[in-house]
Amino acid sequence: MNSPASRINKLHAYMDVNGIDAMLITAPKHVYYLTGFASEPHERFLGLLLPRGEEAKLLVPALDYEAAQAASGATNIHTHADTDDAHAILRGLMPSGVRCLGVEKEHLTVSRFEAMSGAIGAESYVDIGMQLRDMRAVKAPEEAERMREAVRIVEDVLRAGIGLVKPGVTEIELVAELEYQMKKRGAQGPSFDTLVLAGAKSAMPHGMPDRNVVKEGELLLFDLGVFANGYASDITRTFAVGEITDEMKRIYNAVLAGNLRAVEAVRPGASFGSLDRAARESITAAGYGPQFNHRLGHGLGLDIHEYPSIHGNNGELLREGMTFTIEPGIYVPGIGGVRIEDDVLVTSQGVEVLTRYPKELTVIG
Amino acid sequence: MNSPASRINKLHAYMDVNGIDAMLITAPKHVYYLTGFASEPHERFLGLLLPRGEEAKLLVPALDYEAAQAASGATNIHTHADTDDAHAILRGLMPSGVRCLGVEKEHLTVSRFEAMSGAIGAESYVDIGMQLRDMRAVKAPEEAERMREAVRIVEDVLRAGIGLVKPGVTEIELVAELEYQMKKRGAQGPSFDTLVLAGAKSAMPHGMPDRNVVKEGELLLFDLGVFANGYASDITRTFAVGEITDEMKRIYNAVLAGNLRAVEAVRPGASFGSLDRAARESITAAGYGPQFNHRLGHGLGLDIHEYPSIHGNNGELLREGMTFTIEPGIYVPGIGGVRIEDDVLVTSQGVEVLTRYPKELTVIG
Repeated sequence: MNSPASRINKLHAYMDVNGIDAMLITAPKHVYYLTGFASEPHERFLGLLLPRGEEAKLLVPALDYEAAQAASGATNIHTHADTDDAHAILRGLMPSGVRCLGVEKEHLTVSRFEAMSGAIGAESYVDIGMQLRDMRAVKAPEEAERMREAVRIVEDVLRAGIGLVKPGVTEIELVAELEYQMKKRGAQGPSFDTLVLAGAKSAMPHGMPDRNVVKEGELLLFDLGVFANGYASDITRTFAVGEITDEMKRIYNAVLAGNLRAVEAVRPGASFGSLDRAARESITAAGYGPQFNHRLGHGLGLDIHEYPSIHGNNGELLREGMTFTIEPGIYVPGIGGVRIEDDVLVTSQGVEVLTRYPKELTVIG
Repeated sequence: MNSPASRINKLHAYMDVNGIDAMLITAPKHVYYLTGFASEPHERFLGLLLPRGEEAKLLVPALDYEAAQAASGATNIHTHADTDDAHAILRGLMPSGVRCLGVEKEHLTVSRFEAMSGAIGAESYVDIGMQLRDMRAVKAPEEAERMREAVRIVEDVLRAGIGLVKPGVTEIELVAELEYQMKKRGAQGPSFDTLVLAGAKSAMPHGMPDRNVVKEGELLLFDLGVFANGYASDITRTFAVGEITDEMKRIYNAVLAGNLRAVEAVRPGASFGSLDRAARESITAAGYGPQFNHRLGHGLGLDIHEYPSIHGNNGELLREGMTFTIEPGIYVPGIGGVRIEDDVLVTSQGVEVLTRYPKELTVIG
């Protein structure tokens, strides 16, 4: 099993092996991952203290006490008021003799670290971020189920949005409708800024939706996702608005072939680099290699972009339970761009494609 | 004038006075504030280097070069590709002899700081965050104009949302409609998670909108804002759904009196603490002192919550051009809560209340 308690046990084992006396977890998503308590403390202090071989202690703002208790059950919960020095309270919770403290150096700011380390006075502070990233990359069945739900919602949203496409509608109107549908359908919200890019703008991976109008004979790219029950989904589909040119169709089919090649390559023990290369070889064979100018995908879960990064030089191996995106694209300036993005789960046998929205070229509008 | 160039001049003067050899600005909002270039580089490096007495140098991801050049005009722009070591390039841009480097310790993570300081090798790193916060607190006329626009949009959105209130509608449906209206009316997006809280839930300052239904005879609280042209607005209004009790009316009028008292006290030279006390005395006189259980307000501008914090112990003095919220509230468990929030600008003569939405008790639904 992979419950919050079993994750904490893994961290205790990691401390034993690495000579770490205690860990202080401060990233709210990691506190959630390890206790079930989700919160956004903003400038207030939130920390989960894991002294090696002892019970975990959670230090929360006083106004979050009830919520923390309800969400995390048995955890030993301490509070600080806005008038307290949270770091002094933290020092009081720290067992004596902590020399090496594990912290998340990619989350802690220098200001917070200086104040915290001044109060604690450990001899050394080591980064435990990679260990947490690695644990998060492999999802428990219960996490995969939440991701299926986040995908289900975003696909319903996409279906509803597609129904409103007609020549003359603007990108921003479609974005507004999609994000409205997300909330209506029970998502916590978008997992990133929703993209709707029409015509030549679809060739700009960093384009921003605006009052640009959808026109007949163009490509129309949707890239959207939601957070639901703490987990993210992320899908891209590109459509033809009315009749499109043969070159646009060639581009579409080259991206689709690349997407399918990479999806087929997913199985435990394959390297991430091999997935990127599978898609890239296919797209290069179609003559569009230079126009696929970004990595294949990224890890997906508690964050919309998380470890690992899926590019051709990543020799790490896929493990059962990992979830990530596969999103090749071809972008031709002046003509348009196509990207087809799926969310996949590595299974014991190979792959479960979480996104089920059809991928063959579809004419809308 | 208060242009990006004049802001950089102020930082040079600050370096002269404080013996700082160069500043490295890494918070994207501060790069925007000092160059006009808005971006979200995510994990990629973005930095504005200000060597004392020399021209500013902007280091951006290669794919942002055109956007940075278009937005910032004359700035000396350098790039790094994903395969480069951005910190090594930064070291190459740093003039020799930099011993004391100013950095934003509330923005830099420990990971980034360790990598950056390892490459730069300065003798000391001082925090320049307070200086930037202080500069940002006083808005130029052009910034105030953007804030008026952000307020104008959110008030149109609120007006549209109020038109849909009727018994039976849920909080989450109203939130979805409001956020839809924001995008339709040209906002970049909400400046924070929109709150719609009905009935007893309006007494929970940390309540979350859900499928709770709006009912006759209850209070209905809206707290919402947008980002537009880089600047935030933030407004709260509370309404009566049909006929409400005399106690609810007393609560409403006590909050309104507190709001008006604080607004009247705004003028250059008054202390922030005096505004909080003015509202609190008025609410205490009405018998609800303990139920006004949060600070009066917060600075508003590039961020939804920025410096200063407006509470009774803040002895700092108001200056012309400052913008902040005034948002007293009374929360009575089981009955409901009322909050009335305005955005104000300190003028030479006193105050301009940016929010013009009516404040007298209004029955809707």
